[in-house]
Amino acid sequence: MTSWFVEKDADELSYGYSLKETLFSGKSHFQEIKVFETKAYGKMLTIDDFVMLTESDEFVYHEMIAHVPMLHHKSPRRVLVIGGGDGGTVREILKHQEVEHIVLCEIDSLVIDVSKKYFPKVSQKLDDPKLTIHIGDGFQFMREQKNAFDIILIDSTDPIGPGEGLFTKEFYASVSKALCPGGLLTIQSESPWAQAKFLEKIYQNIKGSFQTVKPYIGSVPTYPRGLWSWTLATNDSTWKSSFDLSRFNTFQGELEYLTEGMMRNIFDLPNFYKKKLGLS
Amino acid sequence: MTSWFVEKDADELSYGYSLKETLFSGKSHFQEIKVFETKAYGKMLTIDDFVMLTESDEFVYHEMIAHVPMLHHKSPRRVLVIGGGDGGTVREILKHQEVEHIVLCEIDSLVIDVSKKYFPKVSQKLDDPKLTIHIGDGFQFMREQKNAFDIILIDSTDPIGPGEGLFTKEFYASVSKALCPGGLLTIQSESPWAQAKFLEKIYQNIKGSFQTVKPYIGSVPTYPRGLWSWTLATNDSTWKSSFDLSRFNTFQGELEYLTEGMMRNIFDLPNFYKKKLGLS
Repeated sequence: MTSWFVEKDADELSYGYSLKETLFSGKSHFQEIKVFETKAYGKMLTIDDFVMLTESDEFVYHEMIAHVPMLHHKSPRRVLVIGGGDGGTVREILKHQEVEHIVLCEIDSLVIDVSKKYFPKVSQKLDDPKLTIHIGDGFQFMREQKNAFDIILIDSTDPIGPGEGLFTKEFYASVSKALCPGGLLTIQSESPWAQAKFLEKIYQNIKGSFQTVKPYIGSVPTYPRGLWSWTLATNDSTWKSSFDLSRFNTFQGELEYLTEGMMRNIFDLPNFYKKKLGLS
Repeated sequence: MTSWFVEKDADELSYGYSLKETLFSGKSHFQEIKVFETKAYGKMLTIDDFVMLTESDEFVYHEMIAHVPMLHHKSPRRVLVIGGGDGGTVREILKHQEVEHIVLCEIDSLVIDVSKKYFPKVSQKLDDPKLTIHIGDGFQFMREQKNAFDIILIDSTDPIGPGEGLFTKEFYASVSKALCPGGLLTIQSESPWAQAKFLEKIYQNIKGSFQTVKPYIGSVPTYPRGLWSWTLATNDSTWKSSFDLSRFNTFQGELEYLTEGMMRNIFDLPNFYKKKLGLS
């Protein structure tokens, strides 16, 4: 008999994955973590029964969250990742030679352990000498940082459970202070197909602490409704999109999803999404 | 008790939709057609238990299949749509003032009847005076056309069941003859996340009858794996992408998905997809 893992989205939608086997199931102090071998996407990591990543498509999420802000910053030397214990975001950041130091602040060491054991391609850079891993609460950690990072990436779960605080106005205010002048924040910001109220709340919360807020989109097949968004923010009110093509050219052959054409139009949003954000 | 409609994808994945009610269920000579009221996407049309469209997201598919070829043709006056009985593709084509005559060749009149009754926004142009509806087999119809259309759109179901013939080499050879000089074909060509063998077969079949073959992508949340592809083809071996921006500007405010930025880079494909098609 075939067994299935089924993710529910707000009791409106469900996404089922036929399984070859369950490789790991465990509970940390914070959440329940499982690893499945799926037929369609290879190994899959779930947290509290929500899909976090699969080995077949994780490149989309990680390329999108890392390279869009990194390529828009002239000299991204100091980088902070909140969440991201699987290591995929760190792996992409390290494709930029300018990076001197990355801090990964992950609340749950079990995410790191599981990723190292079951997802070697994703976690391959978690022992890199440029990386410092801090096990602790991102909300708390951020309040202690002032003028410390060029890039801050919020690579968290959804705004429920342990990730909830990472979508609040209070949190964004502390992120704003933790960034150096010219610094850029990027956060995963849910599906453009989600309910307008929910999307607008995230957008307005970020807007409350930053001068310029720029959502962008990409297609992640294992996330609910397929299309996903990330949001870049900065305290420069005159900020314009301009990315470093020569730096991009040093590694774009290694990428699987993000292309030069996408980068050129990264903040060009479909009308249906602009309407949901109240932008048109 | 909540009831669900669940679509299976190759026994590897499933997509469930929580239902408010079933509005229609009927069988034609060719297939089984149902209309559901879903919680997440409003009204949904299924054929043989595969999702064809929902009223919330149908604009993505229809804008993508229609405007990309239409905007790449200098004077798209005569247009043929094979399949497309719901009317969404015809509605988009009619946004181009240059169009003089559209032929819609749909094998199953029940699709048209159901769309007129349950999807008025989609089917709104099915009584347009520029449109001729031909109820019949697209494969047969195409063989009778020579040098007759500027644009041919294959708006069909998947390459199984009634739509199977519309993915064969023999069919593409007849499409090639039915196009006027400089004419453009566009076909729905499945998800870039589907198996490489399957995608490469569709691509190679088209390549066998056309000099230039250009796939492009867009995100449809209710199609399996979220990301979808369409493929444009022409017999001009020196064809280069160049779209009519002034024509686009006359209606782009009415569009919900396709943007100027997307049009500018429409044939810029992610590496993972190019590899599956054998293009890199």
